[in-house]
Amino acid sequence: MQGAILVLSGPSGAGKSTIINHASPNIGEYYFSISTTTRQPREGEEHGVDYYFVTHEEFEEGIKAGDFLEYATVHGNYYGTSLKPVNEALAQGKLVIFDIDVQGHRLVRAKMGDYVTSAFITPPTLKELEKRLYARATDDTSIIERRIENAKEEINAIGEFDFVIINDVIEEASSQFTTIANAARLKQNREELEKMVLHWRN
Amino acid sequence: MQGAILVLSGPSGAGKSTIINHASPNIGEYYFSISTTTRQPREGEEHGVDYYFVTHEEFEEGIKAGDFLEYATVHGNYYGTSLKPVNEALAQGKLVIFDIDVQGHRLVRAKMGDYVTSAFITPPTLKELEKRLYARATDDTSIIERRIENAKEEINAIGEFDFVIINDVIEEASSQFTTIANAARLKQNREELEKMVLHWRN
Repeated sequence: MQGAILVLSGPSGAGKSTIINHASPNIGEYYFSISTTTRQPREGEEHGVDYYFVTHEEFEEGIKAGDFLEYATVHGNYYGTSLKPVNEALAQGKLVIFDIDVQGHRLVRAKMGDYVTSAFITPPTLKELEKRLYARATDDTSIIERRIENAKEEINAIGEFDFVIINDVIEEASSQFTTIANAARLKQNREELEKMVLHWRN
Repeated sequence: MQGAILVLSGPSGAGKSTIINHASPNIGEYYFSISTTTRQPREGEEHGVDYYFVTHEEFEEGIKAGDFLEYATVHGNYYGTSLKPVNEALAQGKLVIFDIDVQGHRLVRAKMGDYVTSAFITPPTLKELEKRLYARATDDTSIIERRIENAKEEINAIGEFDFVIINDVIEEASSQFTTIANAARLKQNREELEKMVLHWRN
């Protein structure tokens, strides 16, 4: 496999997109994996940009057809990653960046561990997370509260990640992310490198 | 723990020291862990620079006193890493670089896994390794042959390492090493970061 994988997880509101956008000029060519979901688009969200929005039936057909690298149910909605575009980007030697939850991270690592680097991104405090979620103001209070409960649950998995980025000062978080992305890229061709070296023994 | 650990393994003759020296100006402050050994110094090797050279008895007293982070026997000689200087460097927030064998890597990872990044460094081919070992001309043919057999054995552990560096073109290997060292440094304070974040839940 020519490419490499960088998994980002962390609470909604941690600033994952902001960090990626900020670091974007410094991390070379990458493919940002767009998730597929059955949840309703929020205001301003676009199909094919933020998510692929599909129906419950379409998603379940995809599951049956083996189209998903990973998927999970969160608050009654499906979220998943289609294999096809990921495999295409990897075949082109690109760094593929995933923004998925801790369940998704586990599955991707189990399937493609040799090529995976992962980082858990989080705001410095719970107060700051709450502030950011309320400031975003795209969601109802009940949804925000659910996100906060979810965040408290997700951080239990922090030890499973290669790196932790505390997004307090964006310049610092973005610089750390750049270092991690550059290291992640070194895992491309890992299998070929190992084969080449192991070939000596004989 | 303030510091972080970077373990380098790979056959004698892979060029580990050359890579570290070449990358040295770009990787910030680090402490290079000096191993302790019972083997005879080679010509030009200095006590306290290349190794701490001690007697068999001194080494075994150290084992009994729990002075070693890791140690192993290779071809009848002891090789080990003293805990004290490593802990001091880590307490000062330094990146500690180890040049140890694959057995040592396993032990360090088992004890300090959260802070460890590791890379296996190897020449591109067995022919090239042989060429380099003979060109060095500091060892007898029998020792070189033993090193080559050892290399064939050690590469079986390549899959245990976070990264693989093929040292073919030194500039390239050194640049990859720099990226890895910078990423390794991000693991400092890992435990504190996790505690800080996990503290939210309550």
